[in-house]
Order: sequence, then C-alpha cells, then structure tokens
Amino acid sequence: MSQIFSTSPYKGTRDLYPDELLKRKYIFDTWRKAMVANGFSEYDSSIIENAEAFIAKSGEELGGNQLYSFTDKGDRKIALRPELTLSFARLVADKFDQLRFPVRWFSIANCFRYERPQKGRTREFYQLEINIAGAERGPVDLEILNLSAELFKTFGAKKEQYKILYNSRLVLDEWTEKNGWTSARTQIYKTLDSWYKQTEQESLAQLSEVVSAADAEKIIQTAKKEGLAWQEYLEIALNQSEMKLMLETLPKIQPDVDLEFTATIIRGQAYYTGLIFEAFDTNPENNRSLFGGGRFDNLLDLYGKKAGAVGLAPGDVPFSEFLDSWNLWPEKFNELEKVGIMPFSEENLLSIYTDIIPKLKEEGKSFEIDYDFSRSENKRYETLKKKGCGEIVKIGF
Amino acid sequence: MSQIFSTSPYKGTRDLYPDELLKRKYIFDTWRKAMVANGFSEYDSSIIENAEAFIAKSGEELGGNQLYSFTDKGDRKIALRPELTLSFARLVADKFDQLRFPVRWFSIANCFRYERPQKGRTREFYQLEINIAGAERGPVDLEILNLSAELFKTFGAKKEQYKILYNSRLVLDEWTEKNGWTSARTQIYKTLDSWYKQTEQESLAQLSEVVSAADAEKIIQTAKKEGLAWQEYLEIALNQSEMKLMLETLPKIQPDVDLEFTATIIRGQAYYTGLIFEAFDTNPENNRSLFGGGRFDNLLDLYGKKAGAVGLAPGDVPFSEFLDSWNLWPEKFNELEKVGIMPFSEENLLSIYTDIIPKLKEEGKSFEIDYDFSRSENKRYETLKKKGCGEIVKIGF
Repeated sequence: MSQIFSTSPYKGTRDLYPDELLKRKYIFDTWRKAMVANGFSEYDSSIIENAEAFIAKSGEELGGNQLYSFTDKGDRKIALRPELTLSFARLVADKFDQLRFPVRWFSIANCFRYERPQKGRTREFYQLEINIAGAERGPVDLEILNLSAELFKTFGAKKEQYKILYNSRLVLDEWTEKNGWTSARTQIYKTLDSWYKQTEQESLAQLSEVVSAADAEKIIQTAKKEGLAWQEYLEIALNQSEMKLMLETLPKIQPDVDLEFTATIIRGQAYYTGLIFEAFDTNPENNRSLFGGGRFDNLLDLYGKKAGAVGLAPGDVPFSEFLDSWNLWPEKFNELEKVGIMPFSEENLLSIYTDIIPKLKEEGKSFEIDYDFSRSENKRYETLKKKGCGEIVKIGF
Repeated sequence: MSQIFSTSPYKGTRDLYPDELLKRKYIFDTWRKAMVANGFSEYDSSIIENAEAFIAKSGEELGGNQLYSFTDKGDRKIALRPELTLSFARLVADKFDQLRFPVRWFSIANCFRYERPQKGRTREFYQLEINIAGAERGPVDLEILNLSAELFKTFGAKKEQYKILYNSRLVLDEWTEKNGWTSARTQIYKTLDSWYKQTEQESLAQLSEVVSAADAEKIIQTAKKEGLAWQEYLEIALNQSEMKLMLETLPKIQPDVDLEFTATIIRGQAYYTGLIFEAFDTNPENNRSLFGGGRFDNLLDLYGKKAGAVGLAPGDVPFSEFLDSWNLWPEKFNELEKVGIMPFSEENLLSIYTDIIPKLKEEGKSFEIDYDFSRSENKRYETLKKKGCGEIVKIGF
C-alpha cells in the first residue's frame, strides 16, 4: 500500500456525512409518506440500463453527450440511467399482462448525467419518479397535478413560495394549427420554451423569421397572457375535457396554490403528448424550475406495448435548495435521544450490556460508549457531551 | 421509435415490483432502526469510486476481473464500487481532523460485481456497511460482534437458526509462530479457509506439503477443536485481552446465541488485522455464510491516515434468503389501509378531493380512485377490491 489516493469524491458526486444524510433522509421519508398516503406503491430497479434504449428515447442530449455509457465485459452497451422514466416503462411493459391498470407507482433512486457540475446540478442526483400508467388523459392528469401541489404542502410550503405552471401539447398543437402555423411549430415552441431566458425582443425576432409580424405579435401576447390572443388560447383549452378539469376543478381543490395555465411551458422538444407542467421556486434568490412532468402516451412503444401514462420527477438537489431558500427544514430531525455511557474499566462492560443498554432500548433511547480508560474523567465526559449525549452514565467510578 | 427493446433487466440485476420492494424495505427499515438504536449514524456516498484504489486495496479478484471499471469522458478510471468499506475509509480520511473518534457509522447502499449470477449472488446487491473507526482493538470489537448477534435477534431469529464463528488474525499469527510454522502460514491459512469446502483428507494432504506429518495432524486437531492441540490454541487466545472479552464476556451478554471461537474462520487472504468473524445460517437447506467482518487497522493507509477500524457488512440477498429459510418474514408489512373511491362521473371529482380524501388522510388511510366511468358498477367495484381496497366508497350513483 505505497500509493496514497485522493480523498475527494468522484467529480460531481457528493459524500453525505451524517448531518447531511439526515437532511436527505428527511426529504426521502417525507416524499415516501406522501406517496403512500396517496395510494402509490414503491418499486425499484437497477441503475444499469440498456444504453441504446436511452438513445432511442432521448436523442442527442440525454442519450448522447450526457449519458454515462460503457461496454461491459460481456460486450453489452450499458448506461447508468440519466433519468427514471425509461425503467418505469420497461417494468410496466415486462409485466404488461399481469398488472392491474392503472398502476400508480413511485421510486426514489439515483441517476447520472455527464455535465459540468454547478449550483443545483450534480453529476449524480436522486429523483422521486412518480407515474400513473394505463389510464387515458383526464382525471389522472388532475391527480398528478394535484400531487405536485401536495408535495410542496407536505413540507409546509406556503402559497407565495412556489407556483405550478401548466400547459398541454394538445392545446399548443391545436392553437398553432388553427392559426396556420403548423410548419412554424418547432421554432414557435422553441421560442416559448426560452421565454424566461431571453428578452421579448429576442423572442419577437425569432418568431418573425417563421410567421408574419402580426402573428409574431399575437404569439407574444399569448405568452404574456394579454388581450384577445390569450382569450383565444384559453378557449381552445376549455374545449378539451382534461384541460377543463385543470382550469375549473383544480383551483377549487387547491385554492391556496398558485396554479396557472401558461403558454410558455413547453418542456423542451421532449416526448410529451398532453399535459405538461413545471413547478417553480418564487424566491428571487432561487428563482428556478424545481421539477416538471407531463403525459407521455408513446413511451411504452419502445417495448412494444401501448399505455397512456403521466408523471413527474422532483430531484433531491433542487428540492433541498427550495427548502433552504425558504428555511423550511424542521428545527430538528427525528433522532433518538443519546445517552453517554462511561465505564471505569473493562470490568464494567458486562453490566453495560446486560443492564444499561436493555433499559435504554426499552425507553427508546440510543447510546454511545466511551472506552478511553486512560483519559481523565472530565475529558471523557466532555467528549461524550460533544458527541451529542444528553445524559451521561458513569459506571464503576 | 421503430426498434423494440427487451424488457428484461440488465443481467444479474433485479426489478423490484411493489410486493418485492416491500420485503427489501422491511429489511432496510429494520436494519436502520437497529443501527440507530445502537448509536450508529448513517452516511452515504456515490456508487462511483476511483478504480485504482480498489485495485490497490483488493488485488486481482475484487479489484480485477470482478470490478465494473470504466473510463469516463474525462479519461478518469472509475469503478462501480464492489463493496462499501473503501468509501468508508475515504470519507473518514477526508475529514480526519474534524471528526470526533471513534465514529460509529453505517450505510445501506448498492454494489456491483461482475460475476456469474447464481442463487444468493447477483451482480448488483445491497449491503449494510457497519464500521467503528478510530478505536484500538478491544471493547469496540465486542460491540461489533454483539451487534452481529443483535441484527439476527431484531428479525426474530432463534438460537438454533444461526451461528456466529469468530477468530483472530493475531491468534492465528501467534499460534503459527509459536509452532515454528511462520514460513508455512500462507498454505495453513488457505487450508483452514477451505475447511468446509473439502474433505479432511484433502486438508491433511495440503498441510503435509508444508509441515511435518505430526504438525499437520496437530493443525487438523485444532480445526476440529480436539484435545491438546485445541487447548493450546485457546490459551493463546485467552492471553489476548480482546479475545478474553469475546471468550468470557460475550457468552454472558448473549447467552442465547451460538458464538464460537473457531480456528477455521480465516476470511480469505484479506486485509484483516485482528478479529475476524462470519455468521452462518444453520438451516441444512441454506447452510451458508451470511456475512462476515473483522478488524482492519491499515485500510486508511491508502489515504495517508492511520486509524484502527472494525466492521461488518451483511448483504440484502443472503439476508433475505435467511428470512425465507426460516420463514421469519412478518405476516404483513406495515401498509396503510386502502379505501376504494368510485365516482359516478367527472362531476364527482371535486367532492372527492375536497371532502373524502382529507377525511381519509386524517384517519391515516390511503386511497385508490377508479375513473372507468364506462364500465359497469359491479366490474368497477371488483377491480378496486382486487387492487387491495377494503372499504369502497361510491359517489353520485
């Protein structure tokens, strides 16, 4: 053992020491409790998936440059999953004939993306993957959007601290079609998707390249929720039954949540086929998208099956930063009270195990034993105190 | 999306559907509860580690053929960890000057080994990694061995269902030295390590190649715990203070556990430096080693630090098979009662969310909503029943 290795974790990954682990555990436990209370069942699968399936699903970005893909010793092209939805689709497809649909499932698991690490973005991260599969659009979309609001409330978040913006691929498609912009769609969606990242001028310039000046202005008005342009867009939505549920029923279910039908929610050029939504932190210092989701009715095609599905996937890192930004962490985590045990010598060990520890377990307390017989009584006492022990029991002194 | 992919999980990994996940969760929750009650703190780190550190630590087998090692896009040699002890050592070394020793830590995490999958052995598996670092041998070794017994008891296992065999590298070394077998050590340990896998004749033949016939016979007698040969070995142990604790105090702490000082416990040619032990299922149909552990005082050398450490690492797959073999699973897992909700039409959705669900949450119940408005009342009722709902609430019929 002559070589000395670096103690740093692998680039873009984190070591969670006990204090930090408690925070992540609080998030996972709270997520899990909320999901189970809402009738969802937990599943899990391996971090290794078929690399080619990701490339087929996600194309260049997630499936290409960002993918941790390797060849194993058996010459299989494998990948560390960059997200959890593909595995969900695979599991549903594999037991397609045995499952009772709709399935309401969740999983909490880690993913890898080869990216430049930055605030809120690590190469390894965890997601809470939530999906309902085997149900057409409508009430289950309402359920998923409602769950998004519930997730925030479970952590004690208040109306002004977050907002959930939603849209629909169907509404977008009908809106562009009705206005004769079908061929300009790709650029229109791209511009709307970048709405918050660029100026209105930039958006207008991009749109003017694919539609007339008057139409570009109309699209901008829709993005800004202004006048007749917005009214027309809203009416298209109201004519669709699941959007009616969102627009009319959802505000009554969640009167204390900021839920807005919003033209600028696009979610990339991804595989969504209906509802799309995104949740935001409203804190000016952490003004960012926290998670998103939507309906994906074609994903199981990859595995030769057909089932409507809808879901969302909050991540541990952005969620943790949301709790930081509004100071929503509990004052203390649900830890056991720890009693310090200080034996005078090895002679006292037997009674610690036969008398003291069984009693502490009955009382629901934890313990820490100090064996530094050679140190002074005071120093040993201080050490146990610093390690978080309340009461200290001395034996044989 | 023209290509259709296989729905099978990656070779040697498992998909845990909700029923199976509940079993694994039961093991993890029970482990976690036992560890926290015994004053251990949880930590976590990434599945990716420096491949070269594993090779330096574990040599050819774990570090070589079995290692999932790759080169990342930044030309780093990385590996999916084959075990968790190296990461533990790295984390301790990284914060060496800030930590208050001894640290009592645990982690529950997954590992990968490139092996041929077989019963009880998968390419991906989880381990409960338990370690105490920064304490010399003695009382903390007792604590670790005692914990091994406690882990079984927590799951309701009885004396006759498992046994824990232990030994010490120090005792082995002193025994071989005292008998003038220092140069024959490697072969003697190899033979003892294979004791249960081969016949006495085979062992005798191997030993006769490196020591005299009389000495070979003496070693065999020690392995069989017979006569003077065993007595001499036992005395060497009793002269060492930490072995005295094991031999004299431990049986009084755990009178209802089969704990035996055993010459044939060697744990390979690994990095252990003191106590070594292994726990076995005694069921003839699953007569196998369940987990092992020991003291490793030199591992932090890899990271330029020095600290005594001792630990163990039960795996989820063998542990689950132990619970199978003795039928130790609980009759039912701690699931919420699920109420089926059957609205007549979309008109009823609002009252479900505003009246029914809040009430169920107060009562600590979960729910499942059926939206198949087009199916008959009876069929919808049956579906909810089959999905595990006890009570069914009909609305608007």
